[in-house]
Amino acid sequence: MTFDELFDQIQQGKISKEEAQRHFSLDWMETASRYILDVNRGMRTNIPEIIYGEYKTLEQTIELATKLLEEHPRVVVSRSPFYKELNEHFKNDFPVLWSVNATVIGEMPATKGKVLVISAGSADHPVTYECEVILKAVGVEPLVFEDRGIAHPTRVLEAIKQGIEQDVAAVIVVAGMEGALAPFVSSLVPLPVIGVPTSVGYGFRAKEAALTSMLASCAPNLTVVNIDGGLRAAVVAALIAKNR
Amino acid sequence: MTFDELFDQIQQGKISKEEAQRHFSLDWMETASRYILDVNRGMRTNIPEIIYGEYKTLEQTIELATKLLEEHPRVVVSRSPFYKELNEHFKNDFPVLWSVNATVIGEMPATKGKVLVISAGSADHPVTYECEVILKAVGVEPLVFEDRGIAHPTRVLEAIKQGIEQDVAAVIVVAGMEGALAPFVSSLVPLPVIGVPTSVGYGFRAKEAALTSMLASCAPNLTVVNIDGGLRAAVVAALIAKNR
Amino acid sequence: MTFDELFDQIQQGKISKEEAQRHFSLDWMETASRYILDVNRGMRTNIPEIIYGEYKTLEQTIELATKLLEEHPRVVVSRSPFYKELNEHFKNDFPVLWSVNATVIGEMPATKGKVLVISAGSADHPVTYECEVILKAVGVEPLVFEDRGIAHPTRVLEAIKQGIEQDVAAVIVVAGMEGALAPFVSSLVPLPVIGVPTSVGYGFRAKEAALTSMLASCAPNLTVVNIDGGLRAAVVAALIAKNR
Amino acid sequence: MTFDELFDQIQQGKISKEEAQRHFSLDWMETASRYILDVNRGMRTNIPEIIYGEYKTLEQTIELATKLLEEHPRVVVSRSPFYKELNEHFKNDFPVLWSVNATVIGEMPATKGKVLVISAGSADHPVTYECEVILKAVGVEPLVFEDRGIAHPTRVLEAIKQGIEQDVAAVIVVAGMEGALAPFVSSLVPLPVIGVPTSVGYGFRAKEAALTSMLASCAPNLTVVNIDGGLRAAVVAALIAKNR
Amino acid sequence: MTFDELFDQIQQGKISKEEAQRHFSLDWMETASRYILDVNRGMRTNIPEIIYGEYKTLEQTIELATKLLEEHPRVVVSRSPFYKELNEHFKNDFPVLWSVNATVIGEMPATKGKVLVISAGSADHPVTYECEVILKAVGVEPLVFEDRGIAHPTRVLEAIKQGIEQDVAAVIVVAGMEGALAPFVSSLVPLPVIGVPTSVGYGFRAKEAALTSMLASCAPNLTVVNIDGGLRAAVVAALIAKNR
Amino acid sequence: MTFDELFDQIQQGKISKEEAQRHFSLDWMETASRYILDVNRGMRTNIPEIIYGEYKTLEQTIELATKLLEEHPRVVVSRSPFYKELNEHFKNDFPVLWSVNATVIGEMPATKGKVLVISAGSADHPVTYECEVILKAVGVEPLVFEDRGIAHPTRVLEAIKQGIEQDVAAVIVVAGMEGALAPFVSSLVPLPVIGVPTSVGYGFRAKEAALTSMLASCAPNLTVVNIDGGLRAAVVAALIAKNR
Amino acid sequence: MTFDELFDQIQQGKISKEEAQRHFSLDWMETASRYILDVNRGMRTNIPEIIYGEYKTLEQTIELATKLLEEHPRVVVSRSPFYKELNEHFKNDFPVLWSVNATVIGEMPATKGKVLVISAGSADHPVTYECEVILKAVGVEPLVFEDRGIAHPTRVLEAIKQGIEQDVAAVIVVAGMEGALAPFVSSLVPLPVIGVPTSVGYGFRAKEAALTSMLASCAPNLTVVNIDGGLRAAVVAALIAKNR
Amino acid sequence: MTFDELFDQIQQGKISKEEAQRHFSLDWMETASRYILDVNRGMRTNIPEIIYGEYKTLEQTIELATKLLEEHPRVVVSRSPFYKELNEHFKNDFPVLWSVNATVIGEMPATKGKVLVISAGSADHPVTYECEVILKAVGVEPLVFEDRGIAHPTRVLEAIKQGIEQDVAAVIVVAGMEGALAPFVSSLVPLPVIGVPTSVGYGFRAKEAALTSMLASCAPNLTVVNIDGGLRAAVVAALIAKNR
Repeated sequence: MTFDELFDQIQQGKISKEEAQRHFSLDWMETASRYILDVNRGMRTNIPEIIYGEYKTLEQTIELATKLLEEHPRVVVSRSPFYKELNEHFKNDFPVLWSVNATVIGEMPATKGKVLVISAGSADHPVTYECEVILKAVGVEPLVFEDRGIAHPTRVLEAIKQGIEQDVAAVIVVAGMEGALAPFVSSLVPLPVIGVPTSVGYGFRAKEAALTSMLASCAPNLTVVNIDGGLRAAVVAALIAKNR
Repeated sequence: MTFDELFDQIQQGKISKEEAQRHFSLDWMETASRYILDVNRGMRTNIPEIIYGEYKTLEQTIELATKLLEEHPRVVVSRSPFYKELNEHFKNDFPVLWSVNATVIGEMPATKGKVLVISAGSADHPVTYECEVILKAVGVEPLVFEDRGIAHPTRVLEAIKQGIEQDVAAVIVVAGMEGALAPFVSSLVPLPVIGVPTSVGYGFRAKEAALTSMLASCAPNLTVVNIDGGLRAAVVAALIAKNR
Repeated sequence: MTFDELFDQIQQGKISKEEAQRHFSLDWMETASRYILDVNRGMRTNIPEIIYGEYKTLEQTIELATKLLEEHPRVVVSRSPFYKELNEHFKNDFPVLWSVNATVIGEMPATKGKVLVISAGSADHPVTYECEVILKAVGVEPLVFEDRGIAHPTRVLEAIKQGIEQDVAAVIVVAGMEGALAPFVSSLVPLPVIGVPTSVGYGFRAKEAALTSMLASCAPNLTVVNIDGGLRAAVVAALIAKNR
Repeated sequence: MTFDELFDQIQQGKISKEEAQRHFSLDWMETASRYILDVNRGMRTNIPEIIYGEYKTLEQTIELATKLLEEHPRVVVSRSPFYKELNEHFKNDFPVLWSVNATVIGEMPATKGKVLVISAGSADHPVTYECEVILKAVGVEPLVFEDRGIAHPTRVLEAIKQGIEQDVAAVIVVAGMEGALAPFVSSLVPLPVIGVPTSVGYGFRAKEAALTSMLASCAPNLTVVNIDGGLRAAVVAALIAKNR
Repeated sequence: MTFDELFDQIQQGKISKEEAQRHFSLDWMETASRYILDVNRGMRTNIPEIIYGEYKTLEQTIELATKLLEEHPRVVVSRSPFYKELNEHFKNDFPVLWSVNATVIGEMPATKGKVLVISAGSADHPVTYECEVILKAVGVEPLVFEDRGIAHPTRVLEAIKQGIEQDVAAVIVVAGMEGALAPFVSSLVPLPVIGVPTSVGYGFRAKEAALTSMLASCAPNLTVVNIDGGLRAAVVAALIAKNR
Repeated sequence: MTFDELFDQIQQGKISKEEAQRHFSLDWMETASRYILDVNRGMRTNIPEIIYGEYKTLEQTIELATKLLEEHPRVVVSRSPFYKELNEHFKNDFPVLWSVNATVIGEMPATKGKVLVISAGSADHPVTYECEVILKAVGVEPLVFEDRGIAHPTRVLEAIKQGIEQDVAAVIVVAGMEGALAPFVSSLVPLPVIGVPTSVGYGFRAKEAALTSMLASCAPNLTVVNIDGGLRAAVVAALIAKNR
Repeated sequence: MTFDELFDQIQQGKISKEEAQRHFSLDWMETASRYILDVNRGMRTNIPEIIYGEYKTLEQTIELATKLLEEHPRVVVSRSPFYKELNEHFKNDFPVLWSVNATVIGEMPATKGKVLVISAGSADHPVTYECEVILKAVGVEPLVFEDRGIAHPTRVLEAIKQGIEQDVAAVIVVAGMEGALAPFVSSLVPLPVIGVPTSVGYGFRAKEAALTSMLASCAPNLTVVNIDGGLRAAVVAALIAKNR
Repeated sequence: MTFDELFDQIQQGKISKEEAQRHFSLDWMETASRYILDVNRGMRTNIPEIIYGEYKTLEQTIELATKLLEEHPRVVVSRSPFYKELNEHFKNDFPVLWSVNATVIGEMPATKGKVLVISAGSADHPVTYECEVILKAVGVEPLVFEDRGIAHPTRVLEAIKQGIEQDVAAVIVVAGMEGALAPFVSSLVPLPVIGVPTSVGYGFRAKEAALTSMLASCAPNLTVVNIDGGLRAAVVAALIAKNR
């Protein structure tokens, strides 16, 4: 029913107010969903398909990944407790790159651009490696330096130096505890910095201290993602690097 | 002792101030409990008997459910860690509809009215299915669409379209993480929407983000229940649908 | 450019990858916005136009309200610090019903259905009256009982009794402090109850105690809105009442 | 060294400023600890010796309890994970009254006075029973009514009625979730009420909702203890009842 | 309509399910409110009438107080911003005892029993004086020692000594900042102690530190009221003292 | 003193352990500060000099700005309460572009690249305009669309469409309340999105809801800055756009 | 009454259990307060008398200060809103050193030892100056460097260099926002560092970010005081410096 | 490339703006890292090497410790879940002093100075013993008194007396629950006091109550470390004692 038809029916009293209202809403929906085909989100946003694995069973995850791999060159599974089993299942048919937090199944794309990844401590490794894996999956080369906390200023400088030499497009800083590495790095580079606060630490607001600190920093070139949000930082950094 | 008798005793000094005060309070209680028979709460509020199972042993739960089933056509057990054992125990004598969060033991009533249930992701399934089970137990037909997060706008539209076509009386939106599905759906329907924030997510305020978001929304037709409060959302939606 | 044309250009190497990706996204947008006319949200959701007045100047608010009144029979201004000035400005041309939290400019609609509104204390009056004003603006008759806190159980019973006698479709409970009135009322009525926690109180979590309490309640027929969210409670209750 | 001696030494320059200051402090300490004998705290405060068992090993707890029982008629062990083993160890030599939260080893005293204990739900049983055990250990008779939540107002009234009839000196209300039982009971009795918020509940501020609610209540005769603080409520109620 | 009549009408099909359910609920309410006369709450709970003045205008407060004074010997107004104006208005007709937090209008009752009130610092004076005023209004003699913080242990001991000499029935400790005075005093007296955390302090959780501290204390004879809740502490202490 | 000299002195026992340690640290500092000339931070990070004005007096701010303008073509003053006075003071000598949150004094640079700025409501204007001003100051063209909240999906689509048509390099989403606009926009663009949560809203966690929501979102291309952190979002977006 | 006398009375049945218990407690108090003379706390702890001025009137503060100055060479008034009036009142009779947060009235003592004070920004000035004033009042020489935030690493190095050259005994770091200056400085000095988080900042946990960050730091030589707690940091640093 | 060379290239247009900016930053880094050799942090800060063991595998920890022991006389491993296995592994080759929270491998240094350590309860033992172990590892003699909570004032006095007699340089107070021991001890000693709040306790803010309390205290000679931060307290106290 078109809007005009609806209008006429109302004027001629052939339709009750309640029914007209319902049809009107319905019509709007119908129109919208007929035309807005749910085109591939991956294609629209230029990011591999991501399966959020945290609450899924192994069977659900394999089924979903298998289906997506029929139409996509690669798929990312994030936060699955079954990363080892996924590797076992897929490794004969696809290249698999896995970490505790993220697994990529399928061929890696060619890379374009580079991103510098600096972590504060070895305890931040799982999130740091998640960044590395995802950067590769999106097609950007990661340049990774681990265990460069603020307690060792010269080791931080070394990492930044190499990053700038190799012309990285963005910097990811992975840090827990008080997270001071992020504003320190930000003050030294003329680039967008993405802070990934980790849940490493103990005591007062143990899991939130780094996030709090990074948000409160006055460094003007620093943005932040959720705690342990390595994937998100990597995707954003990759979008910056690829479009450079 | 009537109030008059009490009054006389006081005036004639036959009773001390302390005792009089105590008797007076007592009297009030006696009167109240004589007349306010504890009529069946289920009958008064039109909702099946609900056993809160979280802290009860299997034995306590079975005993309580059995006793209630003698007088009621059905009983709901919520949040019991023994949902599987309950099914085993009762399935030969009663129809049982169980989920992780809620189990219904006994015949389902005939349905009157419909409620649309939309969830953001497959991780929200336990709460979504809890809504479905409870809606049936109260006598309303659920129309369920899962995994319709805001990342796929057209899939949301499709669900809403079908809900309006089938003339649902209310909408339940089950969503974790940032919970943005609830205000989005609310902006598209001329109906009461009940948001069920779930504890799905990780990082900063992982379990509270959806609740925070739904409360803060400016959507005027959205109310909220407790985190993972599927049962409550289903009961309220059912009361709306049945009385329509 | 159609998808087919785009596909051809890609295959024939006439377009770079970056440009193609951009056009593709653009196309999707173009299609969507050509077809999804932004039909009147008020008509779609059956709620009067609402101007959020909190951060607007008097001039901005008057201009916006005037414009909306040209096409709508009435407009709601919520949380404007200029509620008195708005009344002065519009009262000669329109009926105005104002409170501290919400002002309605324009003719009130005829009512259909009733909603019971109970408040805990006289300090909750501004929010209670906001509910009353909005219910009228949406076209539902409010039945209001104020100052019926849990300290006076019989006064609560009296209010509920009258509500049920007059066949209300839903109950709004407005309460601050520990908010115990909401679960108490919920346990006594076979109806949807909407709790509006207010910011009345002092001391520990003064402004959040009632919200915390209402969310935590085990009353199965109680949903909640934001603190001091009278408007939202009234709109939802009205949608229930009008469709009954 | 007396103060006078110290003064003289300073005046005559026989002692440096730093040393004098140190001796002075030391002197104060010496005097204090010579005269303030650490008389039995139990005797001074009229409460049985309490061993905080949460972080102690079984061996430590047994050793400490055995030693205290040599000088005291009874000892309380609170929050020990070894309550069962303690019972096994001591039951042949002493009467033992144990619950999940508190164990009393030794003869119970004769009782004087009564305290009413009302709990909201059966999930609150461990804390409720802790109150009962401690009241007996301090020498007061508990009058216990469980599962009397606000959803069943008449069952609450029945409990209060019996409490007043038996002339209790104080009321303990044990309640989780939204804790509304405490202000409701407080509004009905002319007695001190001690609210014990429990950690029963789920969702938003699950463990703190009852505490928040009881603190925020405007009931003037209600005080509160820590979450799950049954022991503390029982001790205070007993002190009130015994001195009446 | 009696329950029997209702039952018959249902059996004979003279009444619809919806209407029956509504009448049933209504009936319950009618019965309850007919018999539960709202007897004077003050008389039932033995506490003077209290007007919560925080959100009321001067006019509302005067009107309410005047009305209550017609039937009661005294009335308490708590947290009124108009305490000075109230004094001016009533002082010719009634004795008035006012403080920043609480005003008592009307004759003070004779006292029975004593309560010890100790405050940590002079900044706690408004809450301390509120305790004093309310104790007098309920009919108990206050014994007040101010500025006895834990930094001066001997001054605390002096206050306690006098309290025990005069045989007080309970102790109120008023303290802000870290509130350590409350557990310290509790460890020294064989009496119920009521802690009143005040909002005095600055920095981290400035207003909540004393509350947190008092709740966390392991002193078994200490209960707590809301922040700055002098009135509540005084009422409870008075109930203990008067019934001794 | 060189390290060698220090080493010799130690070996020959000419220096105490304490002094050596102190000199050693000192030496390290001396070296560092001799070589690390504090080169212009603006030059190093490619961002105009920013004066944090919140706690400075007008005089301090003018003095500092004047001094910086001698060596830099432009200076930014953020969060100064004296933005109007600053305009008055400098407008005769420099072009001034001011908003409530940020003022730019000096010639604007030529622009390179574009950034899309979308805000949810008109209440977000001050932060939105701050983004616009800063983007211009860094040399990027802003494309601004205000008042495009999620309640009007088609208006959002229109803004995104224009942004993609004009080939923006990044998107800034400014939103308060539940902040759902940020994940919604993120799901529709193949670009880095920077969410700026604002402090617009009321009720529960009024000022933090948008931040919580944006952090919790599962949109992989969304990073976040501090609440009301328009400046930081603009600087990061500009760095992306300029290097593209 | 001695303990022996009490014991005899009990054995001979001349005293009731209640009375004996009361006398016993009393006795303990009497003994304690007779012997523990409240010697001057300032003398015992080696710190000037401090008047907490926040909630005191000007009159109360002057009276108290005047009285203390009769017996002490100097007195500190902290957080008085009347610091200017205090200066006016006392400046003719005493030297006065005042800041917004702390005022010292009386002759300054000779200094012994030095403390390095570094602040992050000029907004931290009031707290920084409070440290300076108090250090002088306790008799230690402050070495102050302001506006040395982590954004300017070489300016931080310069300050540390001078501190070590002058052989300071401890370092105070005053910083708001993300407070990263404190762990950075701590990693560079072989000295105790005292972090003073300030309330400078905006947005998320604006006032608590620096505190959270400093507590979470893994720097092993860093302790922390309350937010804006300059006085406490200065006293502790002075105690370290004076006893060196 | 020197700055001069860079300058020339720019003036002669031989280098683009982007490249010059990158080289400039690079240059700065190169210079800095060439001169700032990462000299041994342990030597610079006078504290043994500390391995943060919480997230490391046993193998990683052993490898790292072995490597450090080649160049250092001792190494500290903090918070390793493998403290027992570390002991087994190293005990044949090195002296090992281990506790649940900290393990020291290698010869202990000679001690200089003393520190008093007082704990509130036996539940605080793991943190107390951590302090003891670390003090020894840094070369200071610990004087430890455990289980001296505020409930036993005279036992506290005894500990302080002995500390002052033995001329300790600083006091560490380890306390959970309400942490009142810290301000109490601070009021009695003329020394720096370092409070270590522990996570011992239950109920409301169980793990944060002692921290909150210690920060809020008005004791001027008290600083605080993170919850359960025994290592940090011990290092700071040792730095004070060794430099005395």
